[in-house]
Amino acid sequence: MNESELHRLLAGVRRGDIDTDDAASAITAAMRQAPYEDLGFARLDTHRAWRQGFPEVVLGLGKTPSQIALLAERIVANGHTLLVTRATADTYAAVRERVPDAIHHEMARAISRKQGEIPAGHGTILVASAGTSDLPVAEEAAVTAELMGNAVDRLTDVGVAGIHRLIREQARLQRASVVIVVAGMEGALPSVVAGLVPAPVIAVPTSIGYGASFQGVAALLGMLNSCANGVAVVNIDNGFGAACVASAITHIRR
Amino acid sequence: MNESELHRLLAGVRRGDIDTDDAASAITAAMRQAPYEDLGFARLDTHRAWRQGFPEVVLGLGKTPSQIALLAERIVANGHTLLVTRATADTYAAVRERVPDAIHHEMARAISRKQGEIPAGHGTILVASAGTSDLPVAEEAAVTAELMGNAVDRLTDVGVAGIHRLIREQARLQRASVVIVVAGMEGALPSVVAGLVPAPVIAVPTSIGYGASFQGVAALLGMLNSCANGVAVVNIDNGFGAACVASAITHIRR
Amino acid sequence: MNESELHRLLAGVRRGDIDTDDAASAITAAMRQAPYEDLGFARLDTHRAWRQGFPEVVLGLGKTPSQIALLAERIVANGHTLLVTRATADTYAAVRERVPDAIHHEMARAISRKQGEIPAGHGTILVASAGTSDLPVAEEAAVTAELMGNAVDRLTDVGVAGIHRLIREQARLQRASVVIVVAGMEGALPSVVAGLVPAPVIAVPTSIGYGASFQGVAALLGMLNSCANGVAVVNIDNGFGAACVASAITHIRR
Amino acid sequence: MNESELHRLLAGVRRGDIDTDDAASAITAAMRQAPYEDLGFARLDTHRAWRQGFPEVVLGLGKTPSQIALLAERIVANGHTLLVTRATADTYAAVRERVPDAIHHEMARAISRKQGEIPAGHGTILVASAGTSDLPVAEEAAVTAELMGNAVDRLTDVGVAGIHRLIREQARLQRASVVIVVAGMEGALPSVVAGLVPAPVIAVPTSIGYGASFQGVAALLGMLNSCANGVAVVNIDNGFGAACVASAITHIRR
Amino acid sequence: MNESELHRLLAGVRRGDIDTDDAASAITAAMRQAPYEDLGFARLDTHRAWRQGFPEVVLGLGKTPSQIALLAERIVANGHTLLVTRATADTYAAVRERVPDAIHHEMARAISRKQGEIPAGHGTILVASAGTSDLPVAEEAAVTAELMGNAVDRLTDVGVAGIHRLIREQARLQRASVVIVVAGMEGALPSVVAGLVPAPVIAVPTSIGYGASFQGVAALLGMLNSCANGVAVVNIDNGFGAACVASAITHIRR
Amino acid sequence: MNESELHRLLAGVRRGDIDTDDAASAITAAMRQAPYEDLGFARLDTHRAWRQGFPEVVLGLGKTPSQIALLAERIVANGHTLLVTRATADTYAAVRERVPDAIHHEMARAISRKQGEIPAGHGTILVASAGTSDLPVAEEAAVTAELMGNAVDRLTDVGVAGIHRLIREQARLQRASVVIVVAGMEGALPSVVAGLVPAPVIAVPTSIGYGASFQGVAALLGMLNSCANGVAVVNIDNGFGAACVASAITHIRR
Amino acid sequence: MNESELHRLLAGVRRGDIDTDDAASAITAAMRQAPYEDLGFARLDTHRAWRQGFPEVVLGLGKTPSQIALLAERIVANGHTLLVTRATADTYAAVRERVPDAIHHEMARAISRKQGEIPAGHGTILVASAGTSDLPVAEEAAVTAELMGNAVDRLTDVGVAGIHRLIREQARLQRASVVIVVAGMEGALPSVVAGLVPAPVIAVPTSIGYGASFQGVAALLGMLNSCANGVAVVNIDNGFGAACVASAITHIRR
Amino acid sequence: MNESELHRLLAGVRRGDIDTDDAASAITAAMRQAPYEDLGFARLDTHRAWRQGFPEVVLGLGKTPSQIALLAERIVANGHTLLVTRATADTYAAVRERVPDAIHHEMARAISRKQGEIPAGHGTILVASAGTSDLPVAEEAAVTAELMGNAVDRLTDVGVAGIHRLIREQARLQRASVVIVVAGMEGALPSVVAGLVPAPVIAVPTSIGYGASFQGVAALLGMLNSCANGVAVVNIDNGFGAACVASAITHIRR
Repeated sequence: MNESELHRLLAGVRRGDIDTDDAASAITAAMRQAPYEDLGFARLDTHRAWRQGFPEVVLGLGKTPSQIALLAERIVANGHTLLVTRATADTYAAVRERVPDAIHHEMARAISRKQGEIPAGHGTILVASAGTSDLPVAEEAAVTAELMGNAVDRLTDVGVAGIHRLIREQARLQRASVVIVVAGMEGALPSVVAGLVPAPVIAVPTSIGYGASFQGVAALLGMLNSCANGVAVVNIDNGFGAACVASAITHIRR
Repeated sequence: MNESELHRLLAGVRRGDIDTDDAASAITAAMRQAPYEDLGFARLDTHRAWRQGFPEVVLGLGKTPSQIALLAERIVANGHTLLVTRATADTYAAVRERVPDAIHHEMARAISRKQGEIPAGHGTILVASAGTSDLPVAEEAAVTAELMGNAVDRLTDVGVAGIHRLIREQARLQRASVVIVVAGMEGALPSVVAGLVPAPVIAVPTSIGYGASFQGVAALLGMLNSCANGVAVVNIDNGFGAACVASAITHIRR
Repeated sequence: MNESELHRLLAGVRRGDIDTDDAASAITAAMRQAPYEDLGFARLDTHRAWRQGFPEVVLGLGKTPSQIALLAERIVANGHTLLVTRATADTYAAVRERVPDAIHHEMARAISRKQGEIPAGHGTILVASAGTSDLPVAEEAAVTAELMGNAVDRLTDVGVAGIHRLIREQARLQRASVVIVVAGMEGALPSVVAGLVPAPVIAVPTSIGYGASFQGVAALLGMLNSCANGVAVVNIDNGFGAACVASAITHIRR
Repeated sequence: MNESELHRLLAGVRRGDIDTDDAASAITAAMRQAPYEDLGFARLDTHRAWRQGFPEVVLGLGKTPSQIALLAERIVANGHTLLVTRATADTYAAVRERVPDAIHHEMARAISRKQGEIPAGHGTILVASAGTSDLPVAEEAAVTAELMGNAVDRLTDVGVAGIHRLIREQARLQRASVVIVVAGMEGALPSVVAGLVPAPVIAVPTSIGYGASFQGVAALLGMLNSCANGVAVVNIDNGFGAACVASAITHIRR
Repeated sequence: MNESELHRLLAGVRRGDIDTDDAASAITAAMRQAPYEDLGFARLDTHRAWRQGFPEVVLGLGKTPSQIALLAERIVANGHTLLVTRATADTYAAVRERVPDAIHHEMARAISRKQGEIPAGHGTILVASAGTSDLPVAEEAAVTAELMGNAVDRLTDVGVAGIHRLIREQARLQRASVVIVVAGMEGALPSVVAGLVPAPVIAVPTSIGYGASFQGVAALLGMLNSCANGVAVVNIDNGFGAACVASAITHIRR
Repeated sequence: MNESELHRLLAGVRRGDIDTDDAASAITAAMRQAPYEDLGFARLDTHRAWRQGFPEVVLGLGKTPSQIALLAERIVANGHTLLVTRATADTYAAVRERVPDAIHHEMARAISRKQGEIPAGHGTILVASAGTSDLPVAEEAAVTAELMGNAVDRLTDVGVAGIHRLIREQARLQRASVVIVVAGMEGALPSVVAGLVPAPVIAVPTSIGYGASFQGVAALLGMLNSCANGVAVVNIDNGFGAACVASAITHIRR
Repeated sequence: MNESELHRLLAGVRRGDIDTDDAASAITAAMRQAPYEDLGFARLDTHRAWRQGFPEVVLGLGKTPSQIALLAERIVANGHTLLVTRATADTYAAVRERVPDAIHHEMARAISRKQGEIPAGHGTILVASAGTSDLPVAEEAAVTAELMGNAVDRLTDVGVAGIHRLIREQARLQRASVVIVVAGMEGALPSVVAGLVPAPVIAVPTSIGYGASFQGVAALLGMLNSCANGVAVVNIDNGFGAACVASAITHIRR
Repeated sequence: MNESELHRLLAGVRRGDIDTDDAASAITAAMRQAPYEDLGFARLDTHRAWRQGFPEVVLGLGKTPSQIALLAERIVANGHTLLVTRATADTYAAVRERVPDAIHHEMARAISRKQGEIPAGHGTILVASAGTSDLPVAEEAAVTAELMGNAVDRLTDVGVAGIHRLIREQARLQRASVVIVVAGMEGALPSVVAGLVPAPVIAVPTSIGYGASFQGVAALLGMLNSCANGVAVVNIDNGFGAACVASAITHIRR
């Protein structure tokens, strides 16, 4: 049971559609569930959707395919939506054996399987990326944001070396509630975007570049030092994290 | 004229309270104003409030008190709210000569003077800080957010070494629309906070610490690598920037 | 002969169970043994157990499997307990040819073979790890500590993003004489643990993470800058070293 | 009331020396005390002595003398022992006005005032320093350790460039329960010491050096990479932290 | 005698205006002059104007005012144009005693005195700077370029956070033969400029910024990783060096 | 149609060789072409030759061979000259399927195919390299410069450890309009070259070296700190970028 | 012809054993030889033995086996002794085809072939290494030093964690004219050695270690900051360079 | 008594000039002297001249003037030559009170007082410096080398930007037994020098420069990566250390 389902249950009770005893036992069952499930090698945080609005996500880095598959199976068994990031082909093969209807987002390097009802975010999240090589990170952000209940708009290859490509798309920029900007090399795109829109900008440096890019450090520093106001930054290549922040923003209750 | 004033003007026209000629000439006057004012040593971005919802802010670092005072005078003359960050006592003395009713926020190292109507943000921005030494940065964030039209709640000295100080304040954490977390040294507080709330967390590393803190780099890296989802980071000691992002979030139109 | 055996020998002499001549020749034989054995490519420190309570351990990095196997054989031939860290499958194959009953701890990437009597440490060493990916380092610490005569308790996947997983385990934390905390990414766990227990905390940063984790540097800096007192740090991924310090602590004579 | 006082109170009750009503009200009073005292700019952690065996210590860096003096006054008013580290002459002047009998340890840059009963640690903590310039950090460690109830032995200027100065002092090294080793420049002393003693070694890099010492980074890296087992490291110049770890070790209950 | 004067002399000889004996002795005198003048603490490179088109310039950093004044005097005595960079007020006072008609460019932190004929460069060098705080470096570039015989155009405060300020000045950008772009913080301006013009762009990172700007490193890395082609970079704050490269370009013989 | 072709067209019109209607429709067709072509994963900047004198170049790093081949095909279809840098054998195989007459420059790791008329640069670009291992980067510079319409002179293996190899080639150095200097390890060659010639020097650090060369950082820093005037630097291994700057210089209109 | 051969020739002339004409033509032939041989991809410095006492050595990193083989062949053809460092098995295979009697020093990763007469160095060069994993670098130093005409003594596995292993070898340390000390990890061995001997110490950091060793940076910094006098340092893993310095020392003429 | 004096004493005994009893008691007195003198804050290494040929030298950094003065007094009282490096004017004032005839070398920032007989080194040590700003470090090297018994030649301001200044001085370079090369900025001078001479080169990077020189790191890296053989490096600004190595070389016994 997640927060939306609880609201629906209580609304049903108020309307008289749902019996109070049934409601009580459904809530009790959810309450009794331990806040985490101990798998020996991991403690699955089963209450995360209650605390944060989305169930625990599996970071594919540093875990074996079989560990990931086991975690995926338990998440699905708990009734939650599954998301695995940084998933290789091997990981997908292992997960599909335990979660046969899981989907592989190749460009985004992610695996997902929806389940239950995810509350919709307000407005649109725009994911803008500077170059073709930044696409895997941008897609990780876009796929994550969509899975978390958001409308996503994609703007590709609008790097600052050809500023007219960006200027032409001002209307789409203006429509966005939150803008995720993905860029490698010098990471200048978030500064220019943030100067054009009133929306909050979440900047994602990528490890694209060579030499003095230092695997994304140059882009990271550029974004942290943005002369434009309203830019916040996540880790290098962390499209997932940017989507989490953006989705937290679109899900604020007013 | 800013966006709120324009809306009010047009509403007055619709109601018949305001003459169309008067309205037309007021709008024309605003249109005619160049998008920036060239002061020789600076181009004051006079349209920023139109593009981003808040007028250009003066970063006090690297400018002389007299340059800052001149910029302050022009901002006020253009009818905008004034905010100077990283202001020293000397700067305040210089500014007060040209803007006599400017206010000095000593702890926040800021100078301000309100003018015109600033649209109110939705919800509350919580500014949590880890230690006493982090207060100047936290106050810079709080003062900025207030000036931008936000309700601000302050939570002081809740560092992770005494986690019970934070756990006791969960209710205030849950009420916030956005949480700004300010911490130096190992910068662990944003991770713990982000694990407790569904709100977006804007983390501000501070230069507090010594030795291997490298003037805030340890805290910055800690925040960028947060194992909690939903954390975005701004530059070291950049309380102002965090408030800009937070205020951009509370001002999203739905 | 190690220090325990010497104590037992002398106690036997005092009780009259052991002949003084036999004792004298046993001690003389140990004395005559050179303090190291020159293998050409290495000088095996055969007196280390006398000086430090545990024989020389073989770090598997940067040595060929055959070099390691030869060292292992000599350690066993000198009557000492064998421990090889950072052992690959190839290394184990080579060692097993010369030390057939050596054990491979796969998760811990270690090879061991007990021999002689190892004095027991006082109390329990708790090994707490932040995430599933930190397990190999945590296991290296746990296996090493056990081999050095310690009782070890393991606490897995208690990272700070779900602080309730840790808070629930306070009783086990309080029972430990020494706590080894293993964490990658932002490395915040030792700060939180050290704020909860009076025991000394040995923190082990791991290379788990990506981007601005810089192969464990972020975690290392976080731990060195811990705002909690009573945290000391070892090298990135050095589970072995943490166990050495912890075991030195549990073996202090009072 | 701290843990020792509680033990004494209960022993008095058992012996019949103390009235149960008096005991009950004394314990109740301590229980009622909030776990922290909110000073506006700080939350004094008044239960730290209960959790960790020593009251909250004031780090003098980044706080104004008057903030420090106010914190000092409240710590003393709560019945706790006072320790301020990194105290300047100005700080001492401010503290003395509110805590007239506070002591200034000039070489150690610390301020202290004992109060109540501090449980004695087991054994001796040896503080060894490599050069004359390392003395302020070594003294910070020694003064802290003494205040925490430990016997401290000091070994000065035993750097590795004249190894005979260290070799001559082996007896004192062997007697120590814990060894704190303070060194700047290349930071090699902990490796040599740890090769000579079975005791745990807490290494403190100092910022002494120039050029490629990078304010203590060279020493820090040297200590983290020690080829000797049983070395754990604290932050650069963190004599206080080393003493905390050492004292946590000498206070382990068996 | 410099190259222009030699050309004029020979043209005079060809026209018959100058006696061959006089010409011969003038050239001989120049030939006899040693290629450097040994001042004990320095070897003044008196042939640099022959090799590189401009006499040796004095970098004011790391030299005492009296050393600089002595060098200045000798440069002037050799008939060369004087340029001192990074000159403090003290330096100017010392130089003026030995070179009374030297000029102090305060904003540019430079001292100059023209002498002889400096060949004019082809076209205009545009010096664009991102913010007010970047002006001293931009002025160092502009003053140097002018002294080396170039027409200089200045474009101030055109940072990327308000891209319209730059777009409005495209005509001036297009007219330049070489563009020097001076920017601190994220250093994004050269990328945007280089995407707009066919001219070579010389980028100068400045130390303006704080926190993760690392005294100009963020800007430097951003410029080195520019996604726009045709950007070359000089050292942080090296306005002088940028002008040297730009002037070398405008003085290429075709 | 590029700028040269436009000039020729208009000259033909003036001479009466070309019909005004034909000219008008040719220009109109070029005008109608969008400034970029959206390929989904990339926006090909089809107007770059108009803005910067050379069409968009494909950086081979971080793109799949099939993405590169598709971009190559579109560039050729737009009538532009093709250049792919950092091309592997796989990339060349994929490109050749779509652009059969593309050429592979193996040493330079580049793919090219000329098309249309490229305006000739003024003078010669000299590419000097310090060692044999620097050749791939030097060749990337040389091939790029030639493709951009320049005469290129190559000077190989003239590192500073045998300064006579360089001194002997002074005549060639003096003849160059621009000098590109490619060097790894300590990167000292640009300083020596820039001391010998009046031409602008574009320095390219390479990642050649080991240990404290840090993949070219040592060379990069050496070049940025050159004590010789007139040196500008591009990214590590960026032979392409150096050629762009050099060619921008040789194509300045006077 | 090298310097020794010239001396012998002239001595023969003085003794009347060699005809002056023959001597003259031999010297003339050597004079006529160009100071380098241009191989297209490299300029072989054929006069290096004249300038520096040993012919040009081939660094195997960054060159193809066939380039190395070609260089090797030319060096041998010029009558010089061949040395290739960092040679892989593939390199050796390629070299042996052109220089069939070349020797492969596997542990040292070097290829050599003596030729002509190499002047003997004065005294012994001692190569001391800290651990087994440092052996390849130590052997590179030893093999190079021997090839350059020196007597070499090897001291293996004398790291500071078991200082008695070093103390026992003081006699050999005292006998050395120059000591090369090879160590990874914390790199403390040179400090201890330099405190024991009057001879110059050339320290070689190795990349042995993990985590915060940063591929030898920790050892490098340790050695640069040695508190012992008389230590000079070469690049990480540069056994060859250390031997060059040591051999330059033993070949100084008095 | 130092080694020279011992030799002289024994020679006197052999010649019969000195009574054996007198000699015996002189030697006994020296033997009885402890190998260090404990001053409380320091252990003066009184046997260093025996072990290393020169008494302990006082590094002025990080010590108070009165500590330095006390050490100076004891060194002189022990009959040794005094050398204090990095001495400020305050230090000199304090030393002069206890050692009235101490000399202040202002440029070299050193204090000295000769005493006893220092054995002469073989040959000349050449100290070459790249620029005027490098002089204090070069002088520290020169003064130290002279005090240690060496003939010193000084070559000033021969940086690589005007290579002819160096080429002209080849004769002096060839005459040197050891060359110390002092350079800041890009630190290229040692590579060029080492390519010209057979002597060992000791390179000293200086902190001269700005921006990306990183207080001498650029020069240090340049020197460590020298493409010339036979270069060894000491710490940034460590003129003293370079002189120690050079003097150890000139004092090798053959």
